[in-house]
Amino acid sequence: MALNAKYLDKLPYRTYVLLGDSEMAEGSQWEAIQLAAHYKLNNLIGVLDVNRLGQRGETMLGWDLNVYEKMISSFGWKTIAIDGHSIPEILAAYAEALLGTDQPTMLIAKTIKGKGVSFIENKNGWHGKALKQEECDRALKELGDVDKSVRGEISLPEDLKPKEGPPKGVPKKIDYPADKPVPTRKAYGNALARIFPQFPHLVSLDGEVSNSTYAEIFKEAYPDRFFEMYIAEQNMVGAALGLSRRGKIPFVSTFAAFFTRAFDQIRMSQYSDPNIKFVGSHAGVSIGEDGPSQMGLEDIAIFRAILNSVVLYPSDAVSTEKLVEEAAKHDGIVYIRTTRSETPILYRPDEPFKIGGSKVLRKSEGDIATVIGAGVTLYEALEAYESLKKEGILIRIIDLYSIKPVDETTLREAASATKSIITVEDHYPEGGIGEAVKSALAASAVPIYSLSVTKKPKSGKPQELLDYEEISRKSIVSKIRELI
Amino acid sequence: MALNAKYLDKLPYRTYVLLGDSEMAEGSQWEAIQLAAHYKLNNLIGVLDVNRLGQRGETMLGWDLNVYEKMISSFGWKTIAIDGHSIPEILAAYAEALLGTDQPTMLIAKTIKGKGVSFIENKNGWHGKALKQEECDRALKELGDVDKSVRGEISLPEDLKPKEGPPKGVPKKIDYPADKPVPTRKAYGNALARIFPQFPHLVSLDGEVSNSTYAEIFKEAYPDRFFEMYIAEQNMVGAALGLSRRGKIPFVSTFAAFFTRAFDQIRMSQYSDPNIKFVGSHAGVSIGEDGPSQMGLEDIAIFRAILNSVVLYPSDAVSTEKLVEEAAKHDGIVYIRTTRSETPILYRPDEPFKIGGSKVLRKSEGDIATVIGAGVTLYEALEAYESLKKEGILIRIIDLYSIKPVDETTLREAASATKSIITVEDHYPEGGIGEAVKSALAASAVPIYSLSVTKKPKSGKPQELLDYEEISRKSIVSKIRELI
Repeated sequence: MALNAKYLDKLPYRTYVLLGDSEMAEGSQWEAIQLAAHYKLNNLIGVLDVNRLGQRGETMLGWDLNVYEKMISSFGWKTIAIDGHSIPEILAAYAEALLGTDQPTMLIAKTIKGKGVSFIENKNGWHGKALKQEECDRALKELGDVDKSVRGEISLPEDLKPKEGPPKGVPKKIDYPADKPVPTRKAYGNALARIFPQFPHLVSLDGEVSNSTYAEIFKEAYPDRFFEMYIAEQNMVGAALGLSRRGKIPFVSTFAAFFTRAFDQIRMSQYSDPNIKFVGSHAGVSIGEDGPSQMGLEDIAIFRAILNSVVLYPSDAVSTEKLVEEAAKHDGIVYIRTTRSETPILYRPDEPFKIGGSKVLRKSEGDIATVIGAGVTLYEALEAYESLKKEGILIRIIDLYSIKPVDETTLREAASATKSIITVEDHYPEGGIGEAVKSALAASAVPIYSLSVTKKPKSGKPQELLDYEEISRKSIVSKIRELI
Repeated sequence: MALNAKYLDKLPYRTYVLLGDSEMAEGSQWEAIQLAAHYKLNNLIGVLDVNRLGQRGETMLGWDLNVYEKMISSFGWKTIAIDGHSIPEILAAYAEALLGTDQPTMLIAKTIKGKGVSFIENKNGWHGKALKQEECDRALKELGDVDKSVRGEISLPEDLKPKEGPPKGVPKKIDYPADKPVPTRKAYGNALARIFPQFPHLVSLDGEVSNSTYAEIFKEAYPDRFFEMYIAEQNMVGAALGLSRRGKIPFVSTFAAFFTRAFDQIRMSQYSDPNIKFVGSHAGVSIGEDGPSQMGLEDIAIFRAILNSVVLYPSDAVSTEKLVEEAAKHDGIVYIRTTRSETPILYRPDEPFKIGGSKVLRKSEGDIATVIGAGVTLYEALEAYESLKKEGILIRIIDLYSIKPVDETTLREAASATKSIITVEDHYPEGGIGEAVKSALAASAVPIYSLSVTKKPKSGKPQELLDYEEISRKSIVSKIRELI
């Protein structure tokens, strides 16, 4: 929210963050503290309540305000230590905060948990406990003559919003030569830059890998709309939520695998009516040589598990461009999975794509099974189709580019027509495409076979790894033969 | 590993950690730095390589070693700044590190990326790039007369291991009065303390919620084997991996929801042959009043997505005790999901439980459907059974306490005997019990219906929330009537 005020909307509102001392053990705090100083957010005020007691006992630093000051100021913040029970000190600190500085300010307040109630004050064992009626009566008595009938209202701050004109234009047409393979991650970067005139609220955030995710294409075109978030994925997602709450459409990109690091922030964002697009590149074993640490193999599972999320997995540049546009239009959490290596162009520039759709790429009366792929495995399925066709064996091929919501109608039709279903995915078996299809067809009583990554992945050439994990054309052909 | 040397094995080995400057943006580093200082790990040496350049450009702090020193020393470390290309300075720093201090030491080394190769040195755009042959030839030439035939071996450090005796005894018998409900999270704490004599390598780590997860029962019995890890879940998982690599059996506990914060560390641990047990309490909407932020609703999905993981979800105190014991015996990653509220005792103390097992609790010839539950939903299924039985409708009930691996034999038998399956779970639909069952029965062509959490959860009484999400006895009964 503070980034938005300073760099995008250029409005004078301030952002306040209330922090507990116990949660200063969390790394995400230090990500935010570091980045706020880097961006010189002199419109951001933190209020750190140092009451010494966590849920089950004392914090690491207790009441050592001096250490908190050293830590936080070493990260580039102005700090003001106060007695958190002294109204004059609190007022003076708020007045002093942000004055004549290009730094964010942290008020560090020494407080006593349960102050004023003798049997609770500074005592362990009361965290998150409700008082019994007689305890409550006693507490109120100790706090003085409490008039329980007093009611009032705290006036909300003015909600400053920028003046806004109409969209600045319409996107250029998609134009990829039909015979030149393009990595979908690059099509993502192209798409962001292409659609910006239509979506002027669009912002791009990237975790120090914009030359790999291709967010750099957008950055170069619209540097004012790009934020380098460095290798701090938790804070990147938190910042995206703030931007989204201020009316922006953040596209957040990093390697698919690295979103696992921010899964708590992704999970929590769903409860704040977010409008965030996550884009994970370098999905699956098909990234090749870089090895398992860099392979997104659980990303579909985590994003599917978010309530009302949309999960998209385009296989070529055209569908990527179209789906990035659909994601920008959609209000909510969208995840787009992109691929490192080049993939051939499958679709004409005017082919329509929609959230919840799919494409039937091969279909005939005599299909003996349906093979469902997305991303790299779709090409493996198409290769399997070609070699089986030579033997007179026909299979149906579906591009399941929308994994959630999934195109149940098309899946049911294929199940009923071809009697068996094979899913192929570059992802671990749980929570991925296989289980999405099984859930969609659970009441249909059709047998479903799933090919997925089931061995500890290695470093190698992409095709070698697809073969090793038995998710390539060879394994699809074997599975079809087995069914026959 | 350093915690292990200092507090458990009491061995004089040192632990070295190599750090890149770019990754100092990650919060997990600051979690580790904070905790290492708290535990006075004067056997731990960090080596921070400050080469200024990240993957796509300069880091936030560039070559400002002074700021790195301030930040790291403010967290309680001894720091030594050096020229990372000066062998004498490096040797002197290693000699000085840890001398006469009860702090960990960080060597902060200024380096030049690509030093000695004119076309790479201190230049952007070479991260992770392999040299072409002619570039390589040129680089070797610039580095001097490089003799490519030189081969050698770096001798490994002595692998110090503690002297070990046999297990100190056998666990006491399980003893829960059959008529007194117990929360499974409490049975978890009891179990840890009970089985320790049989598993002397057992260690407990908890994220500042040991009074909620009941790890405190173990902590009180064996304080030397318990580590308070504060609210820093990423580092807690990292530390568990280190302990596991030194032969310990770490049981890591926090709220089920909070493991989402450490999912990258959990994911990465799978590639280091880990032996770690994760225990998540406060699962599902059944926690009640605390609301969605505290509800574990994606935990089964994330732990199922780990290769070769085991996922257990006991419903009563007896099965919890047995499954904690099975988890301790099993070499690998195990996740145990526990419940906040009390649940009735279902099993006799001598009932056997195993990884990959299940229990058929109600079964007859005339069963018209099978209802599969685990944890809180198992009791809802049993209540549904009772009310349907009064009308002469019989259903089969399965306690699916082992979600991964899943008991395919029993599931297939039930599918074939009862013709339809209903799963009921206190978890989001994706990646949970429903999809585990669908995957197990994918080739069986039986219709499967799943009840799960599908509305944004609220705060309320546990039973109210189960009703609201349509995963209670009422919804099970309705679903059965619908099938009839």
